[in-house]
Amino acid sequence: MRQAGRYLPEYREVRKGISFLDMCADVPRAVQVSLQPIDLVGAEAVILFQDIFTPIPGMGVDLDFAPGPVIAEPIREAAQIEALRVPDPRESVPYVFEILGRLREALAAREIPLLGFAGAPFTLAAYLIQGSGSKDFSILKAMLQQRPDEVEALLEKLTQLTIDYLRAQIEAGAEAVQLFDTWAGLLDPAAYRRWAHPYHQRIAGALQGAPAPLILYVQNGSHVVDSIAKSGADVVSLDWRVELAQVARDIGSQVSLQGNLDPCWLHAPRERIFEMVREMADAASPARGHILNLGHGCLPDTPVEGVKAFTDAARALG
Amino acid sequence: MRQAGRYLPEYREVRKGISFLDMCADVPRAVQVSLQPIDLVGAEAVILFQDIFTPIPGMGVDLDFAPGPVIAEPIREAAQIEALRVPDPRESVPYVFEILGRLREALAAREIPLLGFAGAPFTLAAYLIQGSGSKDFSILKAMLQQRPDEVEALLEKLTQLTIDYLRAQIEAGAEAVQLFDTWAGLLDPAAYRRWAHPYHQRIAGALQGAPAPLILYVQNGSHVVDSIAKSGADVVSLDWRVELAQVARDIGSQVSLQGNLDPCWLHAPRERIFEMVREMADAASPARGHILNLGHGCLPDTPVEGVKAFTDAARALG
Repeated sequence: MRQAGRYLPEYREVRKGISFLDMCADVPRAVQVSLQPIDLVGAEAVILFQDIFTPIPGMGVDLDFAPGPVIAEPIREAAQIEALRVPDPRESVPYVFEILGRLREALAAREIPLLGFAGAPFTLAAYLIQGSGSKDFSILKAMLQQRPDEVEALLEKLTQLTIDYLRAQIEAGAEAVQLFDTWAGLLDPAAYRRWAHPYHQRIAGALQGAPAPLILYVQNGSHVVDSIAKSGADVVSLDWRVELAQVARDIGSQVSLQGNLDPCWLHAPRERIFEMVREMADAASPARGHILNLGHGCLPDTPVEGVKAFTDAARALG
Repeated sequence: MRQAGRYLPEYREVRKGISFLDMCADVPRAVQVSLQPIDLVGAEAVILFQDIFTPIPGMGVDLDFAPGPVIAEPIREAAQIEALRVPDPRESVPYVFEILGRLREALAAREIPLLGFAGAPFTLAAYLIQGSGSKDFSILKAMLQQRPDEVEALLEKLTQLTIDYLRAQIEAGAEAVQLFDTWAGLLDPAAYRRWAHPYHQRIAGALQGAPAPLILYVQNGSHVVDSIAKSGADVVSLDWRVELAQVARDIGSQVSLQGNLDPCWLHAPRERIFEMVREMADAASPARGHILNLGHGCLPDTPVEGVKAFTDAARALG
């Protein structure tokens, strides 16, 4: 999960007077905020500071953040999809790889792993078609039913871009990469198997043999966990809306797990956070591996002492 | 699911120049829009036109709709919870029972069942504490962790109110009642078992023996479907984010099912809607009973011809 962010006063300090998009392209500042959680909250891994929409303007899409992505001209016509470029990310967003390179240098002596990430095709397409975040994504869903071929052409281009983007991140030093499918969990199981799962498999297939494991996160995906386990990802990252012990028994022999405490529970008293982290580790224990984590990124109001309690509790498990 | 609503031009016509709250209290108009879906879209049951917040102002809470409930002074202190009244709904919202009585009269000759409904305690508390709808309900969740006793005192009062309200609806002519827990699906399984499930059980227990079955809908509840099945409700209403065939096998011998087509799929071509309705009926067939329905209410942009295709497809199944 993204660790840097608005819950940290030190992050807000670095962000002052600069837009989110400019911040993503500002190598020194992006490096700085990526590293902040190590010392500030005791994180044991570092994830690149960027947004899942970082590589999208390079396709020829005009967008802004308010704070979620807002697409100037939502993609709803075949001609718009055809016009989209699939750029080489090394050329369209060179700063991403420079940030990764500098982070690897900074982390080399500390034995702290570096993670890269990308948005999954369905989630990127969801924003591009809908035009922004949405409770129901009904414009997207109408298009899925009325003109699935066009949506699939868009998913195709996004898949190609995502593969190139993740490969380039691994080349630049990412030691694991996480694929975020924020909105695929809004689909019923049959629709998920058609419009989300095959693209995960394609991406996992393309990265097979790369020196970095793939972590797949499908938000709100408890109803499709069987498919997620068959995506080809090495690690399945779960939010809190799953019965962790059961998932660990059901799919934990095929994949490792990551997660899954509700970030809102970091408002709890310190002893209660320790207890919940222990319960989580116990529940996940049937899995072949488990990365203790939250089930979603920190929220702007997440208390820093709660995040510290979490990492302290994780270390206390030994 | 609520059938009347903004997707119907005839509903919008009746709503013109009147606020949502006034509309709920306007007996002739509420009766009129409750009945509209029978002839306009071919619905085979009628649900009372109201909102889950209908009985809440009678507790002493000032609220408005914009369009979801907005609480003038969110309930965050013990003193506020203590001050809440548990009114007799027959006195605080007499119009609800007058509407039900008139609907029963209107439906008597047509063999069309009449449904009442209420919001579940957790969902009502979620809005009352948070102050409005929210993506994360982090104020609510912080309070759950920091002052659970106070939230539980609030849940207690809301449970008592909900029992009285549903009993009075059944006395006034409701032939089945639906309990909507819109936000309980945001909880992890352990939190759900503590703050949502026991209140469902209390309500189901209190209604046992009443001449109206209880239907329980927990939005986004695929991870707690085992608990839902043990709530004591006669029918479990599902949204589309479950594997229906599996749920029908797992819990369909204990409870009947209702649902669960994604309302956004009503944008599909008519033949495709017929196909999806058949698939849904097949998937649910292991259950002891199944009420064909959507997985959520219609959205403002739901096409009326899509809703008609759904009811035609249901009738075509015989």
